[in-house]
Amino acid sequence: MVRLNEIRENEVAVGEPSVFDTGVVFIGRIGTPWTSRLECPRQGRLDGPTCTIEISEPWRAALDGIEAFEQLEVLYWLHESRRDLVKQSPANDGAVRGTFALRSPVRPNPIGSSIVKLVSREAYQLKVRGLDCLDGTPLLDLKPDRTLFTPIAPPQRGDFQVGD
Amino acid sequence: MVRLNEIRENEVAVGEPSVFDTGVVFIGRIGTPWTSRLECPRQGRLDGPTCTIEISEPWRAALDGIEAFEQLEVLYWLHESRRDLVKQSPANDGAVRGTFALRSPVRPNPIGSSIVKLVSREAYQLKVRGLDCLDGTPLLDLKPDRTLFTPIAPPQRGDFQVGD
Repeated sequence: MVRLNEIRENEVAVGEPSVFDTGVVFIGRIGTPWTSRLECPRQGRLDGPTCTIEISEPWRAALDGIEAFEQLEVLYWLHESRRDLVKQSPANDGAVRGTFALRSPVRPNPIGSSIVKLVSREAYQLKVRGLDCLDGTPLLDLKPDRTLFTPIAPPQRGDFQVGD
Repeated sequence: MVRLNEIRENEVAVGEPSVFDTGVVFIGRIGTPWTSRLECPRQGRLDGPTCTIEISEPWRAALDGIEAFEQLEVLYWLHESRRDLVKQSPANDGAVRGTFALRSPVRPNPIGSSIVKLVSREAYQLKVRGLDCLDGTPLLDLKPDRTLFTPIAPPQRGDFQVGD
């Protein structure tokens, strides 16, 4: 079961971050069928329910051309998540794993990322499938799926560097 | 060529965000071979140079178990990017596209995301391949690649919901 606010057996908490290194702006809101964390999918599915992404001003003009991409990467702020656990017990059975070895919403910077299918765009509202977050989740970023995007900028030296 | 600070023909700027909705903490630093934005790859490649990700305290314990995953998703803060452009001209040729139809580092929340191959872990330092960012880039998050991760938490209603 999804955590509400409790700390479970063997989990390790550090201080909740209180001093920030920089700030983010919420550029829109996500609408989904899920109003409780006890209902959300643990991971979105591309055949899941249609959800909406609504972009706020002054960022609406930044949608220009987005309908060319069948799949988008969406970053959002998991606003109900605690941020202070370094070890977590997803199954609540005493076994713990590090936060970075999990895709749990509980993380120092609770940023969710999903790949979604773009169903349609109407002005500043997108319909998409593949999300897993609460209704009302704040949006941080939208970009073409990396596998569908070819950079337009001219090549640079780093583009050709292969590994040692 | 990568933008340094200029605004190009037909690009559209709005105000640089100055009031933030929430804050992020830098949980570590990324080491890469690129010390100038004029050299960085426009997109990382899995056969690219080996880079390092070093996690800071108090987040080091959160790495526990990460070595089980061959590929990771990395989120980082593109600290040298301007944040105020809604339309951009990547080729600097007068043609513009919306910021959300690009994977440019210039965005309202300049969060970079890459899929990397985990080469090795030594204590709180990871060696990875597939990054595209400047040396010294602040780290925001690390998680297993979504395609390799099976949720451990018990299923919820949303897991079974398919679309309308």
